[in-house]
Amino acid sequence: MSSKISEETTSERPIWMRNAWYVAAFASEVGRSILPRKLLGESIILYRSEAGTPVAMQDRCPHRLVPLSIGSLRGPVIRCGYHGLEFDTNGKCVAVPGQEVVPPGARVRTFPVVDKYKLLWIWMGASELADPSLIPDVHWIDDPAWVPSTGYHRMEADFRLITDNLLDLSHEAYVHQRTIGNDAVADEPARVAVEQERLIHADRDMLNILPPPFFERIMDYKGRINRWQSAIYMPPGTHMTEAGVYPVETSSSKAFVGRVLHLLTPETPTSTHYFWAMNRNYRLEDEQMTEFIRTAVAHTFDEDKVVLELQMQAILKEQPAHLPSVALRADAAPIRARRLLARLIDAELQNGAVVAPPIALANDPPGNRAATNAVPA
Amino acid sequence: MSSKISEETTSERPIWMRNAWYVAAFASEVGRSILPRKLLGESIILYRSEAGTPVAMQDRCPHRLVPLSIGSLRGPVIRCGYHGLEFDTNGKCVAVPGQEVVPPGARVRTFPVVDKYKLLWIWMGASELADPSLIPDVHWIDDPAWVPSTGYHRMEADFRLITDNLLDLSHEAYVHQRTIGNDAVADEPARVAVEQERLIHADRDMLNILPPPFFERIMDYKGRINRWQSAIYMPPGTHMTEAGVYPVETSSSKAFVGRVLHLLTPETPTSTHYFWAMNRNYRLEDEQMTEFIRTAVAHTFDEDKVVLELQMQAILKEQPAHLPSVALRADAAPIRARRLLARLIDAELQNGAVVAPPIALANDPPGNRAATNAVPA
Amino acid sequence: MSSKISEETTSERPIWMRNAWYVAAFASEVGRSILPRKLLGESIILYRSEAGTPVAMQDRCPHRLVPLSIGSLRGPVIRCGYHGLEFDTNGKCVAVPGQEVVPPGARVRTFPVVDKYKLLWIWMGASELADPSLIPDVHWIDDPAWVPSTGYHRMEADFRLITDNLLDLSHEAYVHQRTIGNDAVADEPARVAVEQERLIHADRDMLNILPPPFFERIMDYKGRINRWQSAIYMPPGTHMTEAGVYPVETSSSKAFVGRVLHLLTPETPTSTHYFWAMNRNYRLEDEQMTEFIRTAVAHTFDEDKVVLELQMQAILKEQPAHLPSVALRADAAPIRARRLLARLIDAELQNGAVVAPPIALANDPPGNRAATNAVPA
Repeated sequence: MSSKISEETTSERPIWMRNAWYVAAFASEVGRSILPRKLLGESIILYRSEAGTPVAMQDRCPHRLVPLSIGSLRGPVIRCGYHGLEFDTNGKCVAVPGQEVVPPGARVRTFPVVDKYKLLWIWMGASELADPSLIPDVHWIDDPAWVPSTGYHRMEADFRLITDNLLDLSHEAYVHQRTIGNDAVADEPARVAVEQERLIHADRDMLNILPPPFFERIMDYKGRINRWQSAIYMPPGTHMTEAGVYPVETSSSKAFVGRVLHLLTPETPTSTHYFWAMNRNYRLEDEQMTEFIRTAVAHTFDEDKVVLELQMQAILKEQPAHLPSVALRADAAPIRARRLLARLIDAELQNGAVVAPPIALANDPPGNRAATNAVPA
Repeated sequence: MSSKISEETTSERPIWMRNAWYVAAFASEVGRSILPRKLLGESIILYRSEAGTPVAMQDRCPHRLVPLSIGSLRGPVIRCGYHGLEFDTNGKCVAVPGQEVVPPGARVRTFPVVDKYKLLWIWMGASELADPSLIPDVHWIDDPAWVPSTGYHRMEADFRLITDNLLDLSHEAYVHQRTIGNDAVADEPARVAVEQERLIHADRDMLNILPPPFFERIMDYKGRINRWQSAIYMPPGTHMTEAGVYPVETSSSKAFVGRVLHLLTPETPTSTHYFWAMNRNYRLEDEQMTEFIRTAVAHTFDEDKVVLELQMQAILKEQPAHLPSVALRADAAPIRARRLLARLIDAELQNGAVVAPPIALANDPPGNRAATNAVPA
Repeated sequence: MSSKISEETTSERPIWMRNAWYVAAFASEVGRSILPRKLLGESIILYRSEAGTPVAMQDRCPHRLVPLSIGSLRGPVIRCGYHGLEFDTNGKCVAVPGQEVVPPGARVRTFPVVDKYKLLWIWMGASELADPSLIPDVHWIDDPAWVPSTGYHRMEADFRLITDNLLDLSHEAYVHQRTIGNDAVADEPARVAVEQERLIHADRDMLNILPPPFFERIMDYKGRINRWQSAIYMPPGTHMTEAGVYPVETSSSKAFVGRVLHLLTPETPTSTHYFWAMNRNYRLEDEQMTEFIRTAVAHTFDEDKVVLELQMQAILKEQPAHLPSVALRADAAPIRARRLLARLIDAELQNGAVVAPPIALANDPPGNRAATNAVPA
């Protein structure tokens, strides 16, 4: 398994799909100033028109290759900071100082972008396929029944290492001992399923256990609990971790449920933009709780960042021939996820007009599944 | 055009001439201590003999390759800081501790160097061709009719990007808005001429305009002015920008003229030593003005440095195949300059004994040309 | 000579032997916490079992390649910090969370390590050849007749450049002018001998000289002295520099003798762990002297570090084809050392089961040799 990771990392084969919507930014990050960001290996700028419409274009003036991000927005155009060429929101050059005629080749590539769920989504594949209905449904960030705590991590790791990490939550017991982890997570194997060739599920029920510190605090309760955990992945970059907890003497319909979205956008083959939102269905008015969760999740992902970046460095410096290859039971979901992702990439390589429509990550309200699965001890 | 830049940058073909005098240092920088500096890709040390004669030699002891710059000057010799070998100013080893006979191969390569115009000039081509009369005439730095403000910038950019920059001054309107630029520079196309297959000229007259901040201050005058601007380039590394301004109600013979020398010496293919001197023909006694100009020019070139270094990085990271190719009217002079430089390099490659004698950059006094060209509105 | 250095540095040919004991650490550095260290190009962790037995293993979990150095020691096992796999001191995986059966491939490579002479020695060649009797005898670090001052330098240089340095002590006159050097060292050629095809000797006697500052201080004596100096090298990484001094009016049996061990372990082809111990046979109770020597030697090796790292950089950046090749009389010992090392490497390449048993670096007590050699003027 591990050797496959490395072979893919170092091969010329693409490691991500292009015909898909990726999160480029939180919608609130982008306005009337220029935000440069590298996405899928390309340097992009993001900004909004005077009317508020989002724009994404290559961060490069076609004349002398200087980044447009050192230019400036001037009403309807962006002006290059070197020789003053002006481009409209379609990337068309509309003015060249000192000459009347604009050369026809003077054009900056633009990319479809859409505001949805308080996120800005970008399509970097074939433009004609950029149908907004293909945006994954992550409405919990923007739904009155839920309250999000959001954040961002830049990880110097192949996005697939993060995918592995999110689909094998047994690491919580070791990486996150002081926050969300306890031994129960590692000791209880997950049930893995592939849904409609589009989703990976890794589900785990932990019954009659002592709550890890994080849950103890959000429930304000120290007794024994039932807990469930669902790791869900929809390639290329959408993860949701659902966690439900409730005191053993109550029922799953009273559960404190968190649906954590982990939205991964490759920056380069070895680095990832990690946008996250922990959405909860309890204490909706409690702003201190929102902030407490934001801090706790950020801290938890800081712990993952350390491990994942060391793992990336180890893979990059090793000769693939020397890599060990040990697959554990806990790798079942990550291995299936790699295969599913590889199949989707292959399909796109064979037919550039193919897309993989997203399906629902989970149903609302969240209690039902838990009621079915969780039999209190 | 741009794609040519990149192809040349990444190719194995030389991008500079060797049979030419380049500025190695300001003469005042070099004395009885050792100055290490990389020039044309080679590590060099500069110092003066006890008699004050300048010396340039490779920064490398032939014995164990340790840089001679960690050695010390001992009377007539430089002594290596590792095993004490001593070399005279011709690079000949004259003493080896512990043995009587000096091995004949123990020799450090030296380069012809000449003090002229308060600069130290180095010849890194075929030594037998190093005729001091081939040094470009830049006497304005060292002429009682002019006062220089001098400075130095190290730019992490191919010297040819700086050449492009200096020959298309339309960038002043955008890069130097707060100092010497205004829109008039970009809106008025330059007249481009090649002189004797040796010089490129790009001349521009801006009549009856409002003065940019810098000129307003040096003239202490806020009314409308006539302005002319001449960008002159003599390959490989000599640029002069002549700028003349005078109130519209006076005549060009009263003009405030600045002749800015930009003397470029490649450090590596992607970095440049940029020695500059803004020489003025007015307020010769005004030392505050000298200092004010030094600060203003340094600030202006700091602005160029930002843009040029970003441009260099963009060229280095792009695949040449993906480079856009947009040539504007304002590129006329840069394109001719590249061609002229390439022809001179080709000539040198075909015949290592060929040199390109310099010609005069401009006549004295400076007013005449302006009088001819500038017809006040 | 120099060109050979560079060719070897840049070639694919191994530059060190594997079938040999190298110093991994001072014994006191290693305990019940995990010490990561790169040795012979491999990332290793060092720690001790609960019983105090030293352990060396690869710094890499075979499951996901994460460094074990971010794990933790838990009684008899080391636990990976990512998914909690546990390994015993033989590198065998003994527990995988969430499953009963441990996959047979789950194993971390370990290396023989031995505590001896207050040092931890590691064998990174064929394990079956790791006979502790092959550890070089450097007992002076751990002998009541001697007192050591110890220290460590990490040098960003090929270990063979340090070997060259230690075998041509003429550099003392230039690099260490302010400490142990004086011109006498450079002016007096060394007598070079190869002993039993296993040791290189470069010996030098300096009679009736003025003491360099360091010796003046340790002897508390400013008159003329006799001095001898023996540079001894046993490949791959054992150097001893014996220095003896005594006032001309006394005899060598009264000499102040220092035996400085320089134990070199390649970290990478261009960096070296340099463990050192200056062992003296005088003022054994004087702790201030111990500390004074430690500081003085550290300072001396700091001076070498500057030169050697610049030399390494010069070799790495030069094209081998352009390297000068000047061999001096003082290079006799370094050249013989390179040849001897190359022969031992070749022997190992031809027969992986070959080892080169160490021989004695010097006899005890040290005075005799000096008495024979040194004829006071």
